[in-house]
Amino acid sequence: MAEIAQVWKDINLSEHKQLARAISRVENNGQGYRKWLSGLNIDLKVPVIGITGPPGAGKSTLVNGLISYYTSQGSKVGVIAVDPTSPFNMGSLLGDRIRMSEHYNNPNVYIRSLATRGSLGGLSAKTIEITDVIKAASFDYIIIETVGVGQSEIEIAGIADTTVVVLVPEGGDEIQNLKSGIMEIADIFVVNKADRPGSDLFKANLIKMLHQKPTSAWDVPVVACVATEKKGIEALTQFIEAHHKSNHVNSKRPYLFAEKAYQLIQSARMKDIDKRELVEIIKMKLQEGEFNLYSFVEGLS
Amino acid sequence: MAEIAQVWKDINLSEHKQLARAISRVENNGQGYRKWLSGLNIDLKVPVIGITGPPGAGKSTLVNGLISYYTSQGSKVGVIAVDPTSPFNMGSLLGDRIRMSEHYNNPNVYIRSLATRGSLGGLSAKTIEITDVIKAASFDYIIIETVGVGQSEIEIAGIADTTVVVLVPEGGDEIQNLKSGIMEIADIFVVNKADRPGSDLFKANLIKMLHQKPTSAWDVPVVACVATEKKGIEALTQFIEAHHKSNHVNSKRPYLFAEKAYQLIQSARMKDIDKRELVEIIKMKLQEGEFNLYSFVEGLS
Repeated sequence: MAEIAQVWKDINLSEHKQLARAISRVENNGQGYRKWLSGLNIDLKVPVIGITGPPGAGKSTLVNGLISYYTSQGSKVGVIAVDPTSPFNMGSLLGDRIRMSEHYNNPNVYIRSLATRGSLGGLSAKTIEITDVIKAASFDYIIIETVGVGQSEIEIAGIADTTVVVLVPEGGDEIQNLKSGIMEIADIFVVNKADRPGSDLFKANLIKMLHQKPTSAWDVPVVACVATEKKGIEALTQFIEAHHKSNHVNSKRPYLFAEKAYQLIQSARMKDIDKRELVEIIKMKLQEGEFNLYSFVEGLS
Repeated sequence: MAEIAQVWKDINLSEHKQLARAISRVENNGQGYRKWLSGLNIDLKVPVIGITGPPGAGKSTLVNGLISYYTSQGSKVGVIAVDPTSPFNMGSLLGDRIRMSEHYNNPNVYIRSLATRGSLGGLSAKTIEITDVIKAASFDYIIIETVGVGQSEIEIAGIADTTVVVLVPEGGDEIQNLKSGIMEIADIFVVNKADRPGSDLFKANLIKMLHQKPTSAWDVPVVACVATEKKGIEALTQFIEAHHKSNHVNSKRPYLFAEKAYQLIQSARMKDIDKRELVEIIKMKLQEGEFNLYSFVEGLS
C-alpha cells in the first residue's frame, strides 16, 4: 500500500505531462485513484462548458474559436473531446481533431481525447472524473465536446454547467424534428454556418419554439455564428459568462451533482461485471443446455 | 411470505386481464417478482421483433400491418410500445397508438405501453422482463416498437432477435448522415413511404452502403413498404422468418443474453438509489457547505 500511495504523491497537475499521466491512471482505474480523487481540491467555480450537436454542425471549429478567444484573454483552457468509436464517423472526427491541433503546443491549452469504446454508461463516469482532475489543475475554462449520437448529448447535460447546442440552418420545417430532449438540455443555442441561405428563418423558428416553453430562471439565447470565420464567438463567450453568473447555474447544481453521483455509484457497483466475460459464461451454459436468465442474474445481483 | 407467494400463484397468463395484472406487478417491482420470473417457462423460440426508426417514419402503421397479417394467419401477437415521455412528441405518439386501437379488442392481440419516465437504463430492464412474461403467455410473435430517440434504438438491439430499422426516403445525400450505430443494429431495413419520389435512389444508396460492410452470416435485406396501404408487409414477414431461421440468430443469442443479464444486474444493484433522493441529500449538504462528490459516492458504492 505504501508504494501505491507513493504513485499518487507529489503529482504536479500544472505540468501537462504529469496531468496526462494522472488522467491515464484515472482512465484505467489505477489502484487508489478513487481515494486520490476525493483528496483533490476541486474548484466549483471553474465553468464547464458542454458543446454538443449533430455531426457536421461545426462543433470542433467552434471549440477552436473558443480556445483562441480565451487564450487571447490570457486564460487557460482544458478541452475534453469525447470520441464515439463508430466506424462510420471516425474519419471525419479525426479531421476535426487535426483542425484543433494548432493549439496542441500552447502551454495554456490542454486537449484530451476520450474514446467511448462503444460502452454505454462507462463514458459518463470517466468524463466526470477526468473533468474534475482538470479542474484541480487550475484551468480557467473547461470545454467538453461530444458528438450528438446515441445519448451522449443527454449525458453531457449532466456534467456541464452550461450546455451549448450547435445546429446548422436547414429547411424551416425541419426544426419541428429537433431530437427529443434537445430543447430541455440547451442553455444556449448556436446557429452555426449562419451565412447560409435560410439561416435567418431557421433562427426565427428556433426562437419561436423556445418561446413556447414555460418561462424559467434563464432565457435560452440563440447565437448566430460562422465558426470558420470566427464570427459570433465573442458574443457566445458573453452568453456563457452571463449564464455562469446567473441563478440558473446555482439552482442546477444539486441536480448536476445527483446525476454525477448516480453515474459514479453505478460505475463502482458494476466494475466487476465485464460483458465479454458474461458472453463466454453464457455460451458455455447454453451449450450445456441449461440457462435460466433470471436465476443467473440473481446469482450476480 | 406465504401471502406474498399466494399473489403469484395460479396466475393464468393466457387470460389478458391476469397477464396485464402480472405485468403491472413486474413493472412496479412487486415483492417476489424476481423469484416468480425465474420460475416461468419462457420459450426461447418465440421471435422477438424490434421495430425502430426516427419519429414520423411510420413505425406504428407498420406494426399495425404486421398485427393484421399475423392474426389473419391465426397467430397470436404481443406488442410492447415503448413511449418516451418527452413533452415534444407525446401528441404524435398518442395519435399512433390510436391507429393501433382497431386491434385492442382482438383476443389474439395483446398491446402494452411502457413509459420510460425519462429514466435512462431503467427502461431496458423492465422491457426485458415484460417481454419474457409475454413469452411465457404463449404468444407466437412479440413486437417491440420504440421511437428512435436517445439510445432506445441501441437498447432494442439488445433485446430483439430481429431488429427492423424503418426509414423514409430523403434526399440521396442524407443517407450518409445515418445515425451512427444504426447500420450495426439493423437485421432488416424497411424503406417506408416507398411511393414517394426519390425512393428508388434512396433504396439503391442504402444497398450500396450495406455492401461496403464486411460480409457476415446474414445479408441485411432492404424492403420497400407503403405501410398505410399494407404494401410490402408480407415480404417483410418473409424476411423476418428467414432471419429467425438463420444461423445469425443463433450466433447472436449469447450476446443478447449477456446484454440482458448486464441490464438486469445493473437494475438490481441500483434499485436502492433514487435520483430525487440524491438531489435532496445533496441540497442539504451544499447548504451546510461541505460536499465532496467522491467521498459521498464512496459511502454509497
